[in-house]
Amino acid sequence: MIRRLAVIGVGLIGGSLARALRRVGQVGEVVGCGRGLGNLQRAQELGVIDRYSQDPAEAVVGADMVFVAVPLGAMASTFAALQGHLQEGAVVTDGGSAKASVVADARAAFGGLPPGFVPGHPIAGTEQNGVEASFAELYQDRRVILTPLCDTDPAATARVDLMWRACGAEVNYMTVEHHDEVLAATSHLPHMLAFGLVDLLARMRENDEMFRYAAGGFRDFTRIASSNPVMWRDICLANRDALSGMLSQFSAEMEQLAQSIAQGDGEQLLEIFSRAKQARDAFIDGQPSDGDNSL
Amino acid sequence: MIRRLAVIGVGLIGGSLARALRRVGQVGEVVGCGRGLGNLQRAQELGVIDRYSQDPAEAVVGADMVFVAVPLGAMASTFAALQGHLQEGAVVTDGGSAKASVVADARAAFGGLPPGFVPGHPIAGTEQNGVEASFAELYQDRRVILTPLCDTDPAATARVDLMWRACGAEVNYMTVEHHDEVLAATSHLPHMLAFGLVDLLARMRENDEMFRYAAGGFRDFTRIASSNPVMWRDICLANRDALSGMLSQFSAEMEQLAQSIAQGDGEQLLEIFSRAKQARDAFIDGQPSDGDNSL
Repeated sequence: MIRRLAVIGVGLIGGSLARALRRVGQVGEVVGCGRGLGNLQRAQELGVIDRYSQDPAEAVVGADMVFVAVPLGAMASTFAALQGHLQEGAVVTDGGSAKASVVADARAAFGGLPPGFVPGHPIAGTEQNGVEASFAELYQDRRVILTPLCDTDPAATARVDLMWRACGAEVNYMTVEHHDEVLAATSHLPHMLAFGLVDLLARMRENDEMFRYAAGGFRDFTRIASSNPVMWRDICLANRDALSGMLSQFSAEMEQLAQSIAQGDGEQLLEIFSRAKQARDAFIDGQPSDGDNSL
Repeated sequence: MIRRLAVIGVGLIGGSLARALRRVGQVGEVVGCGRGLGNLQRAQELGVIDRYSQDPAEAVVGADMVFVAVPLGAMASTFAALQGHLQEGAVVTDGGSAKASVVADARAAFGGLPPGFVPGHPIAGTEQNGVEASFAELYQDRRVILTPLCDTDPAATARVDLMWRACGAEVNYMTVEHHDEVLAATSHLPHMLAFGLVDLLARMRENDEMFRYAAGGFRDFTRIASSNPVMWRDICLANRDALSGMLSQFSAEMEQLAQSIAQGDGEQLLEIFSRAKQARDAFIDGQPSDGDNSL
């Protein structure tokens, strides 16, 4: 049970955590914090938060749990604003999609990693933003990855673990580096390809025509290119090492595939496509059918 | 009105044409032809075709319209089997996803392009195969591209145009080369990226884990990697010039993007992502919301 939860950044991710904890009666008071006054007022009207402050230092007064759900590019300044204002024994966790950069930001702002800081990442989201888009079921049956470090207090980790389980999520553990590699492959790289493909078509002569002849497969394939450009710039910068390496590798493999096609190497093509179809079909068999929560 | 329609290849594409024409009463008799006896029998039971023959030469006897809906790799042998057996004045059209290769196959088999041959491509489909998957509404509000050549009889083109409109489709015209470029960009290239991405993940260490952490966005992005590998090998080989060129270009741009990420060039990233989001959102605004028909 959390007595007072401070949510820094009351958007889809932060708002949905507050709603989920309220639904199961696992939180006393919720204090919101953010830059947009209108969004905070709306969050209060909707009952997602009880009260708010636009000052992070004020928002965390007396909070035993702090959830930082700001964009990756705002982590450093948020941590800096919290420094010296956290309650003794307060647990701090976050929702950032890359973990090495968040850990580095925390280390710099706090002058070393506080034992009560548990880096985390709920693998859930939609293309929507803001508290209006938040809902209590966002984390139901979704995975949350926690990446505690050697100096993280196990009791703090256990509290964050419990919090996410109360929201219906499955909690998994990884190292920071492994998390960033897995996410580069399964989320960040696909976003780069979708953005890149749509951008390529948009820059072609007669691009209106290109999009006119694109059918349903193209629609699904490029849906993630409608994601927030600022958020994705921040993710790229935060996970630059893992992502740039994987994108380079993919690029080299696509050049090889282009060569196989140009040379008419049907055997090689069939091998790649068959292996992919098999993996994709097996992946789908092993997943819940609800495709609503993306990222 | 078509008196006798011969459908060579009674699968999703061929079967759906027959169903659609029957529904609007625009066809007298439908004769099916294919390699699989079970599928032909099933097509007859379902009322998609009236009768069938496994011999293309026999199937087209007395047909005033012939629709060739076989895989691209089987076009050449199908045309060769038809040579000398078509009725005087018969119109022949096809459903191949690449057009230069089909035209070349027809030219070789018939010893020059017959004036009654109208190359075509309905931009519709699902991941399903076979006559069981066919349905009368597949072409409703979908586009069909016809690519008649200088030596194509305009009256033949007009008959094919009318046939597709009767199925509820919008008919557009392009040159063979332009068709192959547009399809390389909007359909063939996305399929290569989806196949390639899933294959890359499948070959990674701990690939089970990779797929386990993939969320809804990944599912949508890679849905087309479940497509038929043989069909896609054939498409790659048939459209090798346009596709290999475009894939090479995309690969080079992804390598540049990897460099921008590695160098932390946030401005460049934001520019690409913003342009893509804008194009994608505009594309979606201009499209019907039904996402059922892919390819």
